[in-house]
Amino acid sequence: MDSLEIIKQISLSSPTKILLLVMDGLGGLPHPDTGKTELETAKTPNLDKLAAEGICGLSDPVSPGITPGSGPGHLALFGYDPVSFNIGRGVLEAIGIDFDLQAGDVAARGNFCTVDKAGLITDRRAGRISTEQCAELCRLLDGQVIEKVKVLVRPVMEQRFIVVFRGGDLAPDVSDSDPQQTGVMPKVITPARAPATITAIIANRFVAQAKATLSGHFPANMILLRGFSSRPNLPTMSEVYKLKPVAIASYPMYRGLARMVGMEVLQTGTTVEDEFKTLIKSYGDYDFFFLHIKGADSAGEDGDFARKVAVIEEVDNALPALIKLQPDVIVVTGDHSTPALLKGHSWHPVPLLLSSKWCRRDRVSQFSESACLSGGLGRFPATQIMPLAMANALKLMKFGA
Amino acid sequence: MDSLEIIKQISLSSPTKILLLVMDGLGGLPHPDTGKTELETAKTPNLDKLAAEGICGLSDPVSPGITPGSGPGHLALFGYDPVSFNIGRGVLEAIGIDFDLQAGDVAARGNFCTVDKAGLITDRRAGRISTEQCAELCRLLDGQVIEKVKVLVRPVMEQRFIVVFRGGDLAPDVSDSDPQQTGVMPKVITPARAPATITAIIANRFVAQAKATLSGHFPANMILLRGFSSRPNLPTMSEVYKLKPVAIASYPMYRGLARMVGMEVLQTGTTVEDEFKTLIKSYGDYDFFFLHIKGADSAGEDGDFARKVAVIEEVDNALPALIKLQPDVIVVTGDHSTPALLKGHSWHPVPLLLSSKWCRRDRVSQFSESACLSGGLGRFPATQIMPLAMANALKLMKFGA
Repeated sequence: MDSLEIIKQISLSSPTKILLLVMDGLGGLPHPDTGKTELETAKTPNLDKLAAEGICGLSDPVSPGITPGSGPGHLALFGYDPVSFNIGRGVLEAIGIDFDLQAGDVAARGNFCTVDKAGLITDRRAGRISTEQCAELCRLLDGQVIEKVKVLVRPVMEQRFIVVFRGGDLAPDVSDSDPQQTGVMPKVITPARAPATITAIIANRFVAQAKATLSGHFPANMILLRGFSSRPNLPTMSEVYKLKPVAIASYPMYRGLARMVGMEVLQTGTTVEDEFKTLIKSYGDYDFFFLHIKGADSAGEDGDFARKVAVIEEVDNALPALIKLQPDVIVVTGDHSTPALLKGHSWHPVPLLLSSKWCRRDRVSQFSESACLSGGLGRFPATQIMPLAMANALKLMKFGA
Repeated sequence: MDSLEIIKQISLSSPTKILLLVMDGLGGLPHPDTGKTELETAKTPNLDKLAAEGICGLSDPVSPGITPGSGPGHLALFGYDPVSFNIGRGVLEAIGIDFDLQAGDVAARGNFCTVDKAGLITDRRAGRISTEQCAELCRLLDGQVIEKVKVLVRPVMEQRFIVVFRGGDLAPDVSDSDPQQTGVMPKVITPARAPATITAIIANRFVAQAKATLSGHFPANMILLRGFSSRPNLPTMSEVYKLKPVAIASYPMYRGLARMVGMEVLQTGTTVEDEFKTLIKSYGDYDFFFLHIKGADSAGEDGDFARKVAVIEEVDNALPALIKLQPDVIVVTGDHSTPALLKGHSWHPVPLLLSSKWCRRDRVSQFSESACLSGGLGRFPATQIMPLAMANALKLMKFGA
């Protein structure tokens, strides 16, 4: 019996409410001049107060040393083992552009590329054509029907696009056509197991037709496909936790991830203020709120330490409006670390605070990486966040007699 | 290879002795007036001294956020994964009344209930009839033989009883007849898998006969059954640890749980003093002592903070007599937390101290939840307690060459 199955058996619906506030990429590394991380540098009186009244710790989204992508990072936050429920690259790209991926669809990530007369790849990114050009070329390839399978093609950004195969009995287990190097031919797509044979045949035919269609469109005269995948079959949060969950997130990928676990997704604006307002307005209608703040991660990815500090301070400043709602459990954390010094996601564990009437308070009085290290939750897998939040909301019955 | 299998391969018999002192429901939550838990409030000079000379930590019986029942809590303490070896409700009720459950028996928990003329349930508890009435009615139902299967019926308390099906080839995987609501008929018992078909047939016939027998016994004119289960097939502690283990526990359920892992169970009185005396008298005959103190949990369940403090102090006060025996390893912990504030079992991790010549001492000098947080054992699954105790008793050989 896996842990989701246990939770499913002991969870119960109740009027208590849980707020999960995720600052994407929250965890950081100390600035060389000050020895303080982004979170430690930010002035966060409201988060510090929550930490003082709550219990803190550090979580590992996947496991120590593993840097998670956004998919695994969020699945873990929602309580789903990110290793068992890995989301393929194709699916993630699709939900990242708000594409309405359906059960049974097989999605792949595509690149327009350049091939020479012999068919050898000379540029895997076709000179990074513009997003507009990409959209035009996608329209040329979109809408074909191959053996009753509809092929949908949508632009993502620059040379990147997605292709979705829909209809028929398609399995996603096929190899990439992208050889990840130049000077060679694109690879033939092959099935990893028998049920994926049809997928491979259709995908190869699509590639061949694309080559013909694109022949006059140098430098984008060929395509490369990789990350064939289908929507993972995730039990919904309502099934597992008996929650009525809602997501407030402005970026498509996080909206898509929330939808994948059965959350309702609200329309909202792009600023912290917009998102907070959306949550407050909808507070009566749900009992679980996933509030996603993208800015901290973007600043970290850009290596902009000061901007990441500013985003954290902006959230802290807006926080009293949420605290005033008196949710039974407030969890503040990130989906992974994104230290500005590394300009990217990292493996460092993520600070977390949980505030509730029933948490066993620790002595942490500041919300920071170093303070969380001695928190009462210790260091723990991020998949345990939801069970802890549920327990503190008194939404879990006893396990076993 | 699971962890029990590893231990089995490397454990060795030796003259060293381990004392596992379990204060049921030991962990707590701070009193709002003092900010101190039950354990932190209690004056415990002897436990503090053991903590100062030993190593401390906090354990999770099942996993963070999960509130364990007594079964899972104790299985974890004995080193058995409480999720793989879940004990059914029927079995637990049976061992809770010291019923000698045999391998192959299928036990269910029963309620006497009230049905109207149409057979619809009007009271799932038959007006909470007295235990005496329950015993009388059980005698009416007890001892039938259905298709060579003997049906044993024993009273538990008020309207609760157990029914045990014995003989034949019975699998326990059948559904409950108890619909857990009124205004509907009791459900037909159905097999979850083919080998349980006979169990379902016999159980349904037993229910039908019970209905006929009880027709004149309003309000107890029908029965509801749930939690069909068999004794889990647990390797004994002698097999796994090569110990000669003994249990000193006054409550039937804990005596039953100890028997289920192959411990000898001694006759003892109901007070802390009685149990300590029993242990001291038998000290020469065994090398593993499970000493179970129920009072802390009962006080917690009653919401009686002061009484829980008093029980802990009583144990502390009696402790020197055990320390004088100089067991090689002393472990003091609980099977779960039972904060008086919550009046029930909870998910909070459980303080633990381990004292032995060979532990790597930490700086903890007080036995309390907050001090254990910074203990040398950190926060860890309760299933690791036995391997740690065994190691400190020098009863485990090297793993691998």
